[in-house]
Amino acid sequence: MAENTDDRLRLLIERVERLEEEKKGIQDDIKDVYGEAKAVGYDAKIMRQIVRLRKMKPDDRREMDMILDTYKAALGLD
Amino acid sequence: MAENTDDRLRLLIERVERLEEEKKGIQDDIKDVYGEAKAVGYDAKIMRQIVRLRKMKPDDRREMDMILDTYKAALGLD
Amino acid sequence: MAENTDDRLRLLIERVERLEEEKKGIQDDIKDVYGEAKAVGYDAKIMRQIVRLRKMKPDDRREMDMILDTYKAALGLD
Amino acid sequence: MAENTDDRLRLLIERVERLEEEKKGIQDDIKDVYGEAKAVGYDAKIMRQIVRLRKMKPDDRREMDMILDTYKAALGLD
Repeated sequence: MAENTDDRLRLLIERVERLEEEKKGIQDDIKDVYGEAKAVGYDAKIMRQIVRLRKMKPDDRREMDMILDTYKAALGLD
Repeated sequence: MAENTDDRLRLLIERVERLEEEKKGIQDDIKDVYGEAKAVGYDAKIMRQIVRLRKMKPDDRREMDMILDTYKAALGLD
Repeated sequence: MAENTDDRLRLLIERVERLEEEKKGIQDDIKDVYGEAKAVGYDAKIMRQIVRLRKMKPDDRREMDMILDTYKAALGLD
Repeated sequence: MAENTDDRLRLLIERVERLEEEKKGIQDDIKDVYGEAKAVGYDAKIMRQIVRLRKMKPDDRREMDMILDTYKAALGLD
């Protein structure tokens, strides 16, 4: 009975560990793509901004850009 | 020529996006395992500690536990 | 002797705790400023972008903006 | 009128920046304390665990420790 409980916990932990492993692998793959991009001259940090912008709805993105421009003008950031 | 460059950037961005998607899926899977564990009475936060401890080399883990016990005693944490 | 060691650790820990407390207070103050800004109609998320942009050297910021515009054009983000 | 709005935004941004500066100073102070602790032989990572444990209510901490021990036994982590 107690052994069953222990096994259940162990199986759950091992499932988490396998998934964490897979996640680690994908994170490495993402890093590799950015590394490849850098190698041909792209800026990884700005690519990340593009990824973030593409996640937004076009209307939201345009509104954000407009407000950002207004704030930049207000602060004298050209 | 410029079009080729644009395509190259687009392809790199799309590869990142697909990988981010996969990563998101795995993160959801991990959350599901913890949710399942909670549903049968386990404490997810403490399970995360176990996952962290199992990543350590046994000797390092034992040394850390010993030092932790010493510090707890020094601070009167029983 | 051992007591002196214990005291030393305790004093170090207590200094960390006081500093963490102060840090928490400042984080709350920052949240309050953003809350105040929201209350008069500003967008806190975009304000945070402004804070980040102002930390950059003007030349670096302009270069980043130029590259960002190029990438946006390449991806058809208007 | 528009100028007043711009000034208001600028003042809010500058308040955030001053607070971020202060926060940075405190974070450096915290790092210094840990550096000092390391210099006399303490383990900074384990000190951080102590800080976390001291934030908990004693009853909660004891309960967490008990569950952690149970899980460690279940997984064969001695």
